[in-house]
Amino acid sequence: MTRTMLKINGDRLNEHLQRTCSSWGAIANSTGMRRLALSEEDKLTRDWLIKECKSIGCDVKIDAMGNIFAIRPGTSKDKQPIGMGSHLDTQPAGGRYDGILGVQAALEVLRTLHENNVQTHCPVALIDWTNEEGARFPGAMMCSGVWSTKSATSLEDCYEVKDSEGCTMRKALQDIGYLGETPCDYRENGLESYFELHIEQGPKLESANKKVGVVTGVQGMKWFSVRCSGREGHSGTTPMDQRSDALVTAARFVAAVSETAKATSLGVATVGVINNDTQSQATIPSGVEFIIDIRCSTDQILEELCTAIFKSFDEIIQRENDGTSYDIVRTWGLPESIFHEDCIQAVRSAAINEVGEAQIMDIKSSAGHDAAWCSTVVKSSMIFVPSKDGISHNPAEYTTPEDCTLGAQVLLQAVLSYDKGCSPD
Amino acid sequence: MTRTMLKINGDRLNEHLQRTCSSWGAIANSTGMRRLALSEEDKLTRDWLIKECKSIGCDVKIDAMGNIFAIRPGTSKDKQPIGMGSHLDTQPAGGRYDGILGVQAALEVLRTLHENNVQTHCPVALIDWTNEEGARFPGAMMCSGVWSTKSATSLEDCYEVKDSEGCTMRKALQDIGYLGETPCDYRENGLESYFELHIEQGPKLESANKKVGVVTGVQGMKWFSVRCSGREGHSGTTPMDQRSDALVTAARFVAAVSETAKATSLGVATVGVINNDTQSQATIPSGVEFIIDIRCSTDQILEELCTAIFKSFDEIIQRENDGTSYDIVRTWGLPESIFHEDCIQAVRSAAINEVGEAQIMDIKSSAGHDAAWCSTVVKSSMIFVPSKDGISHNPAEYTTPEDCTLGAQVLLQAVLSYDKGCSPD
Repeated sequence: MTRTMLKINGDRLNEHLQRTCSSWGAIANSTGMRRLALSEEDKLTRDWLIKECKSIGCDVKIDAMGNIFAIRPGTSKDKQPIGMGSHLDTQPAGGRYDGILGVQAALEVLRTLHENNVQTHCPVALIDWTNEEGARFPGAMMCSGVWSTKSATSLEDCYEVKDSEGCTMRKALQDIGYLGETPCDYRENGLESYFELHIEQGPKLESANKKVGVVTGVQGMKWFSVRCSGREGHSGTTPMDQRSDALVTAARFVAAVSETAKATSLGVATVGVINNDTQSQATIPSGVEFIIDIRCSTDQILEELCTAIFKSFDEIIQRENDGTSYDIVRTWGLPESIFHEDCIQAVRSAAINEVGEAQIMDIKSSAGHDAAWCSTVVKSSMIFVPSKDGISHNPAEYTTPEDCTLGAQVLLQAVLSYDKGCSPD
Repeated sequence: MTRTMLKINGDRLNEHLQRTCSSWGAIANSTGMRRLALSEEDKLTRDWLIKECKSIGCDVKIDAMGNIFAIRPGTSKDKQPIGMGSHLDTQPAGGRYDGILGVQAALEVLRTLHENNVQTHCPVALIDWTNEEGARFPGAMMCSGVWSTKSATSLEDCYEVKDSEGCTMRKALQDIGYLGETPCDYRENGLESYFELHIEQGPKLESANKKVGVVTGVQGMKWFSVRCSGREGHSGTTPMDQRSDALVTAARFVAAVSETAKATSLGVATVGVINNDTQSQATIPSGVEFIIDIRCSTDQILEELCTAIFKSFDEIIQRENDGTSYDIVRTWGLPESIFHEDCIQAVRSAAINEVGEAQIMDIKSSAGHDAAWCSTVVKSSMIFVPSKDGISHNPAEYTTPEDCTLGAQVLLQAVLSYDKGCSPD
């Protein structure tokens, strides 16, 4: 059998995906998932994954941020592995496909290579990146960021990041036994290239009636922490015109974030986290903090939208003139990524072989992915499959078993195609 | 010495007030207080109070909600005690006078009666009401409400109320040893009348340049819990015009609460608590809950303001038409209180004796107090002293030592005046 005729086992892929989701992190009475990074559910899924990878002859390394590298050797002695990865953690109320499909598909590719005794030139690695969601430990794509060394947040900084209950990332890694010894640094534990299968998480493929997205890059993103300050006071005795209510100002800002993104059509902006210091029914709030997530197709457009949003804040402060004020700190950012033509071409040719040119489209990712950080240091690309109704980060997230199978098949063929390009013969 | 010449010891009052605040619940580097109901700090203050009361011959009873009744016997065998009380708990970032002054002043009155061997006709009781602030266990004036039997929240309901860490009120009472055996019911543990000294917590006395407020009643109040519902989604991939963002709707509502109260001039309305279900940077919020506190001088005006606020919510939902919705539950209410003429007159005559008619004014309380619930079952009134800049529920809360002394002196004389009216001779 020629390599281009190799087929992954779709039934097995989908069965493993559903069974592991049902076992570890399922939200009762739904297909929703709550598998927070480094939780007990995450640990059990990781343990299962490693056992599976070892059973098909992979070497497994855990790095200092808990990233798992399961490597199937190639014939070459000098080549780094071709990476295939994504993440096993989810949002607090997420679905079964975001991240999980990419890891399960990579495992299915390794199984297919193993069963068919395929000898690749480059080693092939499955990677599970830690804390991609940033839902438990703030900072999305945290550990691929550390590995790339291009993130503003260093390994030591990440270790000190705390969850809402005060547990540090370092302790969480230790607690579940995933504080590994392999350096979390691409220069010491590198890859030849990186491919990531992911659900689109948006409506574009479905709307265009396409089966596969050939991902050419990832839009730029920035997160800001905004703190509104006012003056505490008694909710019964403080006249309305003598108040400096930080929550009222924060509320106006939250509405302005949404309205500015809509009005300018420059991108998307979301407030997903808000905290009020006092949280007492009878006290006028004096300190409220919230986080804004802003994303645009290019870094320049992103700057424009940020400027427009902050201008709307200044206008509110001036108009209301109620003594409240605000501060902004940029907490996180991911520059616009442009994927590598070699990898994009490997994905495109694999997808065309599977479903034909009419069923595929080039697409830019609106969500951040580990591939964005990887692409800053190794050749990278991604494969998207459709999300039903474009819904993600929601228990209703859904991708058909057929599309999951197709995505994994394209991943297999893209890896083989890239490997062929590395081969001396 | 005639009773009307009796003087409380102002230095002792102020010294005890400041020392106990510094010892139990002080916020570092400020005069702010964080003495949450049934906390370790509250327990230590209660223990001290009981020791002081016993040392001057009072009988101490703890009721089933932890309310403390320290009773100095009178000559009458049938009369119930004349109550003097307030609360020792504070807001999370409150001051040294709200509630605390009323209890310390009552203690000083008991000491003065004791030292001068004054024999009153009625017994005289000091009362520390549990969880007046409702800051730890939601529901302000909770335990005077149970005692009056007029609150919508029963004793058993209150036992199950949880703090933000999931500790029930019953457990908290047990943990600090204040789950008492005396029934929390005015019919089984009654009072002849009730007087409460309190800081005004607003700017009216100061603005009018008066020293004492003769409180004639308490405005009506209602609290509502509002839940906004939307649809979760990915913050990067969900287009702005396809979002049902519950936090954006909640933000518009919070701004509308403030704007409606301002525009109508009917009363005050405050959102002091807000909670977002998901709290994840990259997820569009689908569920946000907040609490509104609405207060007006009469129950009828209160109804008008509630109606106006809810109408503004409906207008927002209709205007935005983004698929978000909301529900409202009334969580708490305190009907407008009208104090009893006998008690108002006792306060007024005592105040006039101390500072003369020009220095006093009748006033309606804009804040809720335990006296509001007491007034539904026994004759009651209150004494207000000025708050600097009208500030309360804030570490900057301040009342001068002279005004604290004056308030306690008026309390002593109001009690003696009322007792004289009960006396057979």
